[in-house]
Amino acid sequence: MIVVKVGGSEGIDLDAVCQDLADLHKAGQSIILVHGGSHETNVVAEKLGHPPVFVTSASGYVSRYTDRETLAIFEMVYCGKINKSIVERLQKLGVNAIGLSGLDGRLLEGKRKATLKIIENGRKRVLHDDYTGKVERANVSLLHLLMGAGYLPVITPPAISEEGEAINVDGDRAAAVLAAALNADQLVILSNVPGLLRNFPDESSLIPLIERNRVEDFMEFAEGRMKKKVMGAVEAIAEGVKQVVFADARVAQPIQKALAGQGTVIH
Amino acid sequence: MIVVKVGGSEGIDLDAVCQDLADLHKAGQSIILVHGGSHETNVVAEKLGHPPVFVTSASGYVSRYTDRETLAIFEMVYCGKINKSIVERLQKLGVNAIGLSGLDGRLLEGKRKATLKIIENGRKRVLHDDYTGKVERANVSLLHLLMGAGYLPVITPPAISEEGEAINVDGDRAAAVLAAALNADQLVILSNVPGLLRNFPDESSLIPLIERNRVEDFMEFAEGRMKKKVMGAVEAIAEGVKQVVFADARVAQPIQKALAGQGTVIH
Repeated sequence: MIVVKVGGSEGIDLDAVCQDLADLHKAGQSIILVHGGSHETNVVAEKLGHPPVFVTSASGYVSRYTDRETLAIFEMVYCGKINKSIVERLQKLGVNAIGLSGLDGRLLEGKRKATLKIIENGRKRVLHDDYTGKVERANVSLLHLLMGAGYLPVITPPAISEEGEAINVDGDRAAAVLAAALNADQLVILSNVPGLLRNFPDESSLIPLIERNRVEDFMEFAEGRMKKKVMGAVEAIAEGVKQVVFADARVAQPIQKALAGQGTVIH
Repeated sequence: MIVVKVGGSEGIDLDAVCQDLADLHKAGQSIILVHGGSHETNVVAEKLGHPPVFVTSASGYVSRYTDRETLAIFEMVYCGKINKSIVERLQKLGVNAIGLSGLDGRLLEGKRKATLKIIENGRKRVLHDDYTGKVERANVSLLHLLMGAGYLPVITPPAISEEGEAINVDGDRAAAVLAAALNADQLVILSNVPGLLRNFPDESSLIPLIERNRVEDFMEFAEGRMKKKVMGAVEAIAEGVKQVVFADARVAQPIQKALAGQGTVIH
């Protein structure tokens, strides 16, 4: 079982990711895809006159401020534009893909942070209308039902809170929870860099291998969005996923290359 | 088995539709929802600077001109914003809903009209980049799989062509194909009018009952979007659906009222 996560950053070659997924699926490999859509959400939000706002939590993490209007835009881009464009690509390649958000069948359940403490201009402030949270459980029975019938699930945030609200969650950590719940052998996290870099953005400084019990020592090298990818890896490994690979989605056969060890392998 | 179609026009009370669906689902009724999103698609397309264009075919039907950019906007609104807002409403009411487009699992298959002959300023013209078609088959095995496991499917256009392309299709006719394929007892078509009106828009001129073999005689009373609803009804009845009801989605308990005979009943 392989869980592949592909980000939504510029430069990512979704055609290559889908071709590789189709080849692996047709070869009999159990595989699911989780995707993001952050960059495109920013573009659409700007155009719709509701530009993205990023807030810094008291503990130092940067996240998208997600009021109800932002949530609707988030759903339009993640669940509409990007999810359906991936499902269409896979269907054209002869793969019977099914797109699902975390809301559908309560696939990704989590807790909404009812209040978010942020730092704004050096001062603390509390937000009450933010729909953000963290994935805690995956409804793998739905995935087993669909995969058993030959479908390839294509999964996207948002997740669902215990109260049934849509919540913006990090896609990398969602993929990690899915990989753990499915007892995956491999979690492949694709983005627009070749892996974890010792000197970001110098791509020649790629860290090729990290021992599973030393992942946290490498957190210092994770810049920006790579932080959550490394946290996802730490969680996945802790929950029993055998191997996590950070790899490049700007190349041909990105998944097969990652499985062959190209990228940063956490083993 | 009941198939409910709810339109995307102004005035429709989606909260009431979802509450009614939840009540019927919890009472053990097999039920699925098909929805539209035409009005909201127009609003978002305008905001995104790609305003809607409607074309009149040589045979006199008005449809949305759907180039690839329009298709992406269509997917954002139908599959993202509206589908997920309905799934979220149902989940909040304790119903394990799953949103699916016609692309997902090839749920709604049809033919793309490779060329569309239109009348523009009185002259004929052929469009080659239009992604519009007609639903011909529904993959009911996927619906049986999900309903058998307790999920309530929430279905939306687009459909998928034989070549795996997304195609804009009419939601009423999609609901009719689904109702026929599922051997539904009832197809309930909800919109922002009380049913088929003899003198549109005079709501006191509601036609309460149409015998199934006389539906085509009533086509003359169908204005605008109601035409495709009546065509959907004709198809559904021809394929064996026992009863079709056109009813009002601006009221409380719209589905139960339709099942009790409020609206235009085709029997």
